[in-house]
Amino acid sequence: MKSPVTFETIKQDSRTRARTGRLHTPHGTVETPIFMPVGTQATIKTMTPDEVEEVGGRLVLSNTYHLYLRPGHDLIQQGGGLHDFMNWHGPILTDSGGFQVFSLGDLRKITEDGVEFRSHIDGSKHFFSPERVMEIEMALGADIAMAFDECAPYPCEHDYAKKSLELTTRWAKRCKAAHNREDQALFGIIQGSVYKDLREQSAKELIELDFPGYGIGGLSVGEPKPLMYEMLEHTVPLIPIEKPRYLMGVGSPDCLVEGVMRGVDMFDCVLPTRTARTGTVFTQYGKLSVRNAQYARDFNPIDSDCSCYVCRNYSRAYIRHLLKAGEVLGIRLTTWHNLYFILRLMERIREAITKDRLPEFRDEFFDKYQGK
Amino acid sequence: MKSPVTFETIKQDSRTRARTGRLHTPHGTVETPIFMPVGTQATIKTMTPDEVEEVGGRLVLSNTYHLYLRPGHDLIQQGGGLHDFMNWHGPILTDSGGFQVFSLGDLRKITEDGVEFRSHIDGSKHFFSPERVMEIEMALGADIAMAFDECAPYPCEHDYAKKSLELTTRWAKRCKAAHNREDQALFGIIQGSVYKDLREQSAKELIELDFPGYGIGGLSVGEPKPLMYEMLEHTVPLIPIEKPRYLMGVGSPDCLVEGVMRGVDMFDCVLPTRTARTGTVFTQYGKLSVRNAQYARDFNPIDSDCSCYVCRNYSRAYIRHLLKAGEVLGIRLTTWHNLYFILRLMERIREAITKDRLPEFRDEFFDKYQGK
Repeated sequence: MKSPVTFETIKQDSRTRARTGRLHTPHGTVETPIFMPVGTQATIKTMTPDEVEEVGGRLVLSNTYHLYLRPGHDLIQQGGGLHDFMNWHGPILTDSGGFQVFSLGDLRKITEDGVEFRSHIDGSKHFFSPERVMEIEMALGADIAMAFDECAPYPCEHDYAKKSLELTTRWAKRCKAAHNREDQALFGIIQGSVYKDLREQSAKELIELDFPGYGIGGLSVGEPKPLMYEMLEHTVPLIPIEKPRYLMGVGSPDCLVEGVMRGVDMFDCVLPTRTARTGTVFTQYGKLSVRNAQYARDFNPIDSDCSCYVCRNYSRAYIRHLLKAGEVLGIRLTTWHNLYFILRLMERIREAITKDRLPEFRDEFFDKYQGK
Repeated sequence: MKSPVTFETIKQDSRTRARTGRLHTPHGTVETPIFMPVGTQATIKTMTPDEVEEVGGRLVLSNTYHLYLRPGHDLIQQGGGLHDFMNWHGPILTDSGGFQVFSLGDLRKITEDGVEFRSHIDGSKHFFSPERVMEIEMALGADIAMAFDECAPYPCEHDYAKKSLELTTRWAKRCKAAHNREDQALFGIIQGSVYKDLREQSAKELIELDFPGYGIGGLSVGEPKPLMYEMLEHTVPLIPIEKPRYLMGVGSPDCLVEGVMRGVDMFDCVLPTRTARTGTVFTQYGKLSVRNAQYARDFNPIDSDCSCYVCRNYSRAYIRHLLKAGEVLGIRLTTWHNLYFILRLMERIREAITKDRLPEFRDEFFDKYQGK
């Protein structure tokens, strides 16, 4: 069976592993490298789908764990699937809930069969097996579903990480066997913590299963960034060149640039939207907290170099006023700007690859952008 | 000096006191009867100015009391005035803070000179005199400023109501003397509680001062609706026909229809936006609370008869999910719909007057719309 999601490389950079490409999905084609805004509860927080598209969002991520608990995957299926339910008619990727249930700590118990956990909403007991997660993701109906994996913590002993990746492989096989939705692709997730030999083992085992794309999981979970970059350098070349590579949970400007240079095609992260809600915004010179008193009478835009709707129309002083007064428009504007900033950065990265000047772009970007 | 705000009647209804008209202001002309969305803290809660315009908002109200306390009228003036600060380039009306400071109850003390009050934000002590309020409203720079009045409570003894309206008249004179901004009109406010003789006295005294428009204050403060309508029937004919009549703080669908029939040209109210944030939405059949369990799997729009952005794109089930999950988009969508509903109602009212069928429209509307 041909995968409903395929990837084609448009241009391989000559000096780095970076590349531009196109990811074809049942809900349209998107250009890579791409950043996926996160819509945890079937909404990119504070934004309409039209606005997500206006700031440059093309492929969005939603969380299986959250949607399963509320409002329920069966309700969403009854409502025509996630695309219709949330009024987003571009491509969607759902994670598998692996990261969320393992983050529950004492609230979950892992066995060979799956994970028993308690809801963070009401404490009710639930069980995720690979088969159950496939059932849920198929009901949600995203273009891309992720396999159910165990996301090992950091730090993590070599012995535990090895057992964990082997469990992830066995679960990946069960996911593949259970998955039968023809308009949805299933991606595998490479684990192995920060151990090169384990990354190799995980990649080898999963590549044998021939998934149409691969997540690189278990990174950006607390390890130093140089270690994450080292793992990327080691893991990316293991993945067949015709398959998209998705670095899960990463989205700070510096990590996006460094990740693309190491061959990553897809990213997702709550960082741009979550920090926006605390009043932290990206600028060409780095982050700033617009709630600070120093911006009370600053009638300049967030970023004088930015041409987003927010920077064209509103001052730091006004946005600060809204945030201090608890007005929803305040976090709408900071979210809007931050997503635009990140998505425009991805666009500039793609342009730089096209023009054969990615390393130069990287240096120019970091000459200005301070703070990682 | 010619007023910067003028009113012209377009069509006087033959069977009621209703009329269509045009209100010309420094920031454009608007059609009346009009409902003014309320932007208490220099933002119509949850909406951008572009969206307010899209749902049909043409003239917005902002609150002097709130903006004086936070972020401060001097800051707004420094930022180019309220229009630039909040990015709303249509007409604005500011209230005088009278209603807000009198609502503070024990936190305020009234004297001939003005009102001493404590901030609801931090308890700090402040003083509003007619002169001080004019200074603040001129700094804010709305197209229409309201005079500083005392808004008597309901119920209210005849004796107190008489003293109160006389104080309001003396303050109106002081406002007029202090106001000197040439691109801003100053409207007077008729008081007198629910006493016809006092409404007459107040109207007579204020009309002598020849304001370019008149607020009808002290209604919709707890009195039964028939009493409010009776007061309107008695007060509106006292106002010179060439002056706009503004019923303050009124905005439920039934009161809008009944108010227009009694000759009101302008309305404002937080009701449509405030109830939206609790999940209550207007439909052609009356209000409904979309948070209710019965809508969990209801994939119809809020109102099948409505052609707003929300009803064209989202189901009750999805909006309920957003509200239950505490997602900002939920209150954005209910606010959007409610404002559209009210502003579209005003448009239908204007059309009905134009077509000489306002009483028929009123009957048709209430045949369907239940609950007042």
